[in-house]
Amino acid sequence: MGFRIVHGSPDIDRIAYGRAVAVYVIGSTMTSTIPGISLAGSMPIATLFTPALDVEYLFYGRPVSLDIVPTTPTGIPTPAIITRVSLQLSKTPFLVVNAGSYIEPAIPRIDLPSKTVGRRIDVEDALPRGTSRRLFEEASSIGYALGSVADIVLVGESIPAGTTTAMSILLGLGYNAYSIVSSSSKDNPLELKRRVVEKAVRRLRGGEDPFTINDIVGDPLHISVAGIALGALRAEALVVLAGGTQMLAALALMKAIEQLFKQSNVILATTRWIYRDRGREIVDFVKENTPGIAVVYTDIGFEDAPSDGLRAYEEGYVKEGVGAGGTAFLAIARGVDAATLKKGIYLEYERITRGVASDS
Amino acid sequence: MGFRIVHGSPDIDRIAYGRAVAVYVIGSTMTSTIPGISLAGSMPIATLFTPALDVEYLFYGRPVSLDIVPTTPTGIPTPAIITRVSLQLSKTPFLVVNAGSYIEPAIPRIDLPSKTVGRRIDVEDALPRGTSRRLFEEASSIGYALGSVADIVLVGESIPAGTTTAMSILLGLGYNAYSIVSSSSKDNPLELKRRVVEKAVRRLRGGEDPFTINDIVGDPLHISVAGIALGALRAEALVVLAGGTQMLAALALMKAIEQLFKQSNVILATTRWIYRDRGREIVDFVKENTPGIAVVYTDIGFEDAPSDGLRAYEEGYVKEGVGAGGTAFLAIARGVDAATLKKGIYLEYERITRGVASDS
Repeated sequence: MGFRIVHGSPDIDRIAYGRAVAVYVIGSTMTSTIPGISLAGSMPIATLFTPALDVEYLFYGRPVSLDIVPTTPTGIPTPAIITRVSLQLSKTPFLVVNAGSYIEPAIPRIDLPSKTVGRRIDVEDALPRGTSRRLFEEASSIGYALGSVADIVLVGESIPAGTTTAMSILLGLGYNAYSIVSSSSKDNPLELKRRVVEKAVRRLRGGEDPFTINDIVGDPLHISVAGIALGALRAEALVVLAGGTQMLAALALMKAIEQLFKQSNVILATTRWIYRDRGREIVDFVKENTPGIAVVYTDIGFEDAPSDGLRAYEEGYVKEGVGAGGTAFLAIARGVDAATLKKGIYLEYERITRGVASDS
Repeated sequence: MGFRIVHGSPDIDRIAYGRAVAVYVIGSTMTSTIPGISLAGSMPIATLFTPALDVEYLFYGRPVSLDIVPTTPTGIPTPAIITRVSLQLSKTPFLVVNAGSYIEPAIPRIDLPSKTVGRRIDVEDALPRGTSRRLFEEASSIGYALGSVADIVLVGESIPAGTTTAMSILLGLGYNAYSIVSSSSKDNPLELKRRVVEKAVRRLRGGEDPFTINDIVGDPLHISVAGIALGALRAEALVVLAGGTQMLAALALMKAIEQLFKQSNVILATTRWIYRDRGREIVDFVKENTPGIAVVYTDIGFEDAPSDGLRAYEEGYVKEGVGAGGTAFLAIARGVDAATLKKGIYLEYERITRGVASDS
């Protein structure tokens, strides 16, 4: 059927027939410029452009701030390709929320007034004190507004080095996160991440509230994702957290801020590649901490892709991002045939690597 | 019943029971700094702050960029008071779209990437060539996204000197607009507006497309309102144009850009004060140019207001703005009692003039 339910009982009828809106939150953390920590860019400095280019590509079919579709250093394309094709085939409307992208994307987007680029968490506090609470409240108002008109609010993200700051947030909130997080790399640079994160959490004194913890060790994005999700839940929408292990950091923030949020209205939806890499860790985390939510993954593979770039996903590169797995899940649950979706992604990859201009 | 239908047959059931979202578009034109042309600020230069302060007040219950609720030079408060109480009592979610506010409002808002402050139309072209088409397309994508999840998209506006640029846009598009437009002043400074507008339209050569006409004689806001409206109509939503004579400029742009837009899905909704001042002109315009739309006004009066500031509305000051009439109509149509709404506005006025902090 194109997706698999691995925990809980998501309300697939509501997903299939409700009104849906997708939200992609973008942000930057200077942590992504630490050499070797993130593959979400052709070189470390390019990771600062990736969130803006990702959402410009979603909107226009081509990035405009730079005319380059984001890739890894070896040329593997952004998962935003999966997202864009899923949105188009399912005719799902989407909005972008800027929580602190290094580059302002040249598209209509919701700017949170407290948006800030996160600082390098290995050397200094991530955000000016008080920022996380404001970002949370601003994002929450957007989630509430969207959740008031939509039945389903999907939240995806793009922040290079996001698995590192997610690890840091989880640790800061008291979870044993060292082995939980995945990576856009085939060989997860866990030792490097651990060194960075250890320096960050050393600044915590213990007893800080979740907003302060995020100010010290986090980034602008995960707290904003948590805000949108809790705002949408308050408006009684169903929330799809479209992402992998980073969404565990968002979940942990949600729980720390609002202990009794309605777990049965939350679905964590990711890709098969994340599930292969960290499926057990995700399900274990959920069972222990947020057992009421559902976990699904999209079972689309690229083994037969005509291009090396997409086949590399099967080898464990990239894996997830820009809500790819969750948006594909939404599309399939709403009637898009999984084979058609895959074919659409292959064609789209061909289009962008040929550099053909989009008409959208 | 709190509102009156003066033209057409609006689908009140849909208004009453559908899902609604309100959008307030803000923008500035340097035209508002011409002395005497706009009362939407305590002095000409203050008009540049008014759009940001209006929407900050909507969001937080108090303006934050400056701690001053916008008033006319004689202290009559912004109609955003009516808007805020209507939104709160009807629990209507809202978003702000920034099309070119001189001040960036310190709230979460949708920024159009081509946002630009409009220039003084009496001395130079309003916008860099090409801006209007881009603003329109960007706004249209937002309208489409919101119209895809909501049944009703209400569009209001805040742009000082907006009646002047509306007159200019209408003239530029070939309408005899000199006597159509209303004013925030009791004594509409029509001669001054006419002089300004004549200088603007003199730059037209004839035969320009509507985007170019707006680049030359318009402002960033009305074209963005037209974009949101047409985008929402494309998604089959019902559109409430919440405003007075300025919305005729938006309608004229809509018609010039998309001749066959679905008029039966459009309602122009304003206040009794605008209707008193320019009701005949509005209905005549609609009958002649967009006969398929409906026109309604909110029949709430402030004769018995405890404060001079609100009673001044009955004398013809301010009259409309920030979607006041349309938002009140939406609230009443969705079940808010008109007397309760009026009482709420009186209490809110008391709160803000006392300077009591809001818990929003």
